[in-house]
Amino acid sequence: MSAIRHALSIKREDDFAQWYQEVISAADMAEESGVRGCMVIKPWGYGIWERMQRLMDARIKAAGVQNAYFPLFIPLSNFAREAEHVEGFAKEMAVVTHHRLVSDGKGGLIPDPEAKLEEPLVVRPTSETIIGDAMSRWVQSWRDLPLLLNQWANVVRWEMRTRMFLRTSEFLWQEGHTAHETRVDAVAETLRALEMYRSFAEEELSLPVVAGEKPENERFPGAVSTYSIEAMMQDGKALQAGTSHYLGTSFAHASNIRYQDREGGQQLCHTTSWGVSTRMVGGVIMTHGDDDGLRVPPAIAPFQVIILPMLRENDGDAPLIAYCEELRAAIAAKDALREPIRVLLDLKPGKAAAKRWDWVRKGAPVIIEVGPRDMENGKVSLLRRDRLWNDAGKSDFSFPSRDEAVDGIAALLVDIQRSLFEEAAARRDANIVRDIDSFDALADFFNADARFPGWVEVQWSKPTGAALDAVVERLKALKLTFRNVPLNADAASGACIFTGEPAVERIYVARAY
Amino acid sequence: MSAIRHALSIKREDDFAQWYQEVISAADMAEESGVRGCMVIKPWGYGIWERMQRLMDARIKAAGVQNAYFPLFIPLSNFAREAEHVEGFAKEMAVVTHHRLVSDGKGGLIPDPEAKLEEPLVVRPTSETIIGDAMSRWVQSWRDLPLLLNQWANVVRWEMRTRMFLRTSEFLWQEGHTAHETRVDAVAETLRALEMYRSFAEEELSLPVVAGEKPENERFPGAVSTYSIEAMMQDGKALQAGTSHYLGTSFAHASNIRYQDREGGQQLCHTTSWGVSTRMVGGVIMTHGDDDGLRVPPAIAPFQVIILPMLRENDGDAPLIAYCEELRAAIAAKDALREPIRVLLDLKPGKAAAKRWDWVRKGAPVIIEVGPRDMENGKVSLLRRDRLWNDAGKSDFSFPSRDEAVDGIAALLVDIQRSLFEEAAARRDANIVRDIDSFDALADFFNADARFPGWVEVQWSKPTGAALDAVVERLKALKLTFRNVPLNADAASGACIFTGEPAVERIYVARAY
Repeated sequence: MSAIRHALSIKREDDFAQWYQEVISAADMAEESGVRGCMVIKPWGYGIWERMQRLMDARIKAAGVQNAYFPLFIPLSNFAREAEHVEGFAKEMAVVTHHRLVSDGKGGLIPDPEAKLEEPLVVRPTSETIIGDAMSRWVQSWRDLPLLLNQWANVVRWEMRTRMFLRTSEFLWQEGHTAHETRVDAVAETLRALEMYRSFAEEELSLPVVAGEKPENERFPGAVSTYSIEAMMQDGKALQAGTSHYLGTSFAHASNIRYQDREGGQQLCHTTSWGVSTRMVGGVIMTHGDDDGLRVPPAIAPFQVIILPMLRENDGDAPLIAYCEELRAAIAAKDALREPIRVLLDLKPGKAAAKRWDWVRKGAPVIIEVGPRDMENGKVSLLRRDRLWNDAGKSDFSFPSRDEAVDGIAALLVDIQRSLFEEAAARRDANIVRDIDSFDALADFFNADARFPGWVEVQWSKPTGAALDAVVERLKALKLTFRNVPLNADAASGACIFTGEPAVERIYVARAY
Repeated sequence: MSAIRHALSIKREDDFAQWYQEVISAADMAEESGVRGCMVIKPWGYGIWERMQRLMDARIKAAGVQNAYFPLFIPLSNFAREAEHVEGFAKEMAVVTHHRLVSDGKGGLIPDPEAKLEEPLVVRPTSETIIGDAMSRWVQSWRDLPLLLNQWANVVRWEMRTRMFLRTSEFLWQEGHTAHETRVDAVAETLRALEMYRSFAEEELSLPVVAGEKPENERFPGAVSTYSIEAMMQDGKALQAGTSHYLGTSFAHASNIRYQDREGGQQLCHTTSWGVSTRMVGGVIMTHGDDDGLRVPPAIAPFQVIILPMLRENDGDAPLIAYCEELRAAIAAKDALREPIRVLLDLKPGKAAAKRWDWVRKGAPVIIEVGPRDMENGKVSLLRRDRLWNDAGKSDFSFPSRDEAVDGIAALLVDIQRSLFEEAAARRDANIVRDIDSFDALADFFNADARFPGWVEVQWSKPTGAALDAVVERLKALKLTFRNVPLNADAASGACIFTGEPAVERIYVARAY
């Protein structure tokens, strides 16, 4: 296998962080913008996000949640009102103070001192407060509940250290905000959103995740409980890929979201919020990428099938182009994964082999090459991106007839979708350790293999307050964090590895993004 | 007809501007947010925008244009570089000057003086400069052309006088930006986008429009030519519902977008830009709304069919609910206007009649009511929103059998889509005057009926520079503007009503939003 000349210059095992940057560049997904902390999401990267958005939006709508749109700007006073809330965002936000530019008299422009805002406006870091304001107007009676809202939006958090898709000052997300009559209803919605995220990640992104509850120290500020889905990246680190919060009545109290109950009394609503972001794109890269670039699960691939005619770039190409156009139309007429297949006939100028490697780096699931001789013989050369190399270290083309290729394409895409999931799930399962029964053993484990150590599931007594803080500090010294308490974990049976007290549940410990 | 008790308190003919506000409120589309100039787009209003976005995006993608995403913030220096460009936006923009909040020591928050940005950032009023920057990096050779990009985004222009959907400080839009080898290619793209907008408006929004070229004084700053689609509102005013600009090489020069041509020389690209915004929602309201609220064309209705069971709100309702759920599923299994029908079974608490009027005000195209007796008789009560009243001034229900309703629903929706277009087109055509042959006659026409005067198509000699400015001033005194020179106008044959010189083309004059 070492004879293979991979398409990237950096291998995952040599420098995972550099490899990640190279995939983004080689797959033409995004680039730095020149604006501090903000990236440009290029068509291939944005196309993947659009697909995620489309599929997630269908799930959100199917749950009866309605999309709406709220202002980009939030008055400063909203934040002062929710001091606890602000604490959680470290106050790093973009602040608008002026509404006009004026010449500086030296050929440049400056904010016009005459156009200073009376009250500065904050660019939303999340929309809790402004959506809470709206809910307080929209909810009057129990008949108005549940109120199930979602927003697709850009948000800004001024990040000092950024990494494309994983942490940028501006990012794209959806934020669900719901209000309910009772605690039971709101907790059910919190868990419904969590399950929506789990099934979305596993079915659409081929991303195996653990759904569970965050410990107290990792809760969203002000939340009663915070749940997450956690995915294991190929370097063994955890990525929190989505969160869902049960907020109790504290946000309703701050925003005055009250309703008249069935008996005529006034009650505070129980609220929830839940979100996923462009961060998921980073999770897909670090889960499915390989040393040849990205591999995109078919459900979220902007194009699932690429047809590459071997053109000579002269007038003799016309019959081959016509043949490939007919092939494209035949494939586009088929459905896979519940939608028409997205197929591109790539006629851009350039050598077919160079173009093939462009699509390999981008991770298009299936590449079909057709030369003049293939056309004569009624065959095509087909490459599946998830299994690029054969045992001999050569590109693992298959050579079905044109009709076999068309008839088999839907099943092939389904198989790639499933296969990527299984590969990631097997790797994840092989890298979870469950037999560590002391803090020293935990430290040894993570010190022994500092690079790609995986996750450890430990038993703990669920300390709170200062006792929890002390445990968190001990983990921090090892660069470790608690991830979550899986919903489907086995019951605890031993002693807590931190306190020695009887354990009450199992929790994941890992390095994390 | 005067006996009809309409669902709104204000009639169009009495106060069109107030009526517009009442429709937005009665149809629950949007509301003021409390943030200056920004509105909250509520689920029904946002659902209409989402439908527009979905349908437009399909047309954009079908033309080979790729979506991407660029930063919300633009460095101040970008604007200084394009001074001409800034002039056009009156420099009214939101300026970010700080990146952190800090306590003011009195329980409030202020922008942290320690966290002042070295270079202020402007919240994008349009993305010309930042997309131009990216194009200058992405275009190297003629092989990279055409570069066809589009962005769906929020933009901010600090407006002093706002009106919901028509003019708000923050609004949602798409902006297409393309780069080409030649003038011919770029002009063709400009006109392709214009035709995309025309067919979109007419086919999806049932909005008859005039596609044409703007006169020099209405051009986008820096553009060689600007085209628009113009729609006539029910008060006779024009609404510019979309624009497409051929920018020549001036933007490529400012952003340094150059390519190596087929002979190895360096050339500036020819660029275009084109956009439509949430303003179109205002156009739909002012075209299709009536004295009972909004009427939404089926293609963009979040729900096309509402099923309202006449519930008694007790345990005896179960069979009727089951019957209606089966009816809902039967309708949802059908396609209309190339998509599965969007049908809602409305089970919210409340009287059926009150709920019916809620949906009338929202403008759902078809309302189907089912009572226990209807269920027994296998019938439904069906109301089409575009023809609410019969000649006797009563709600114009029809009473098809359940099966007739299901079988006929697709054709009914298509008919409503077409019928709304025809109604608007007939009104528009009846309110265009073409026989005005002097400026005095023009002034008399608009002074005679100050309220809903319609449009006048005049012949003109197409003056430029100061001569044009003088004409524009004379029109301004009558609160009139040039709209556009229709692409499909008859040839000019007479004298210019402004200059008396031989006319060279026909141009629309109107009051406008």
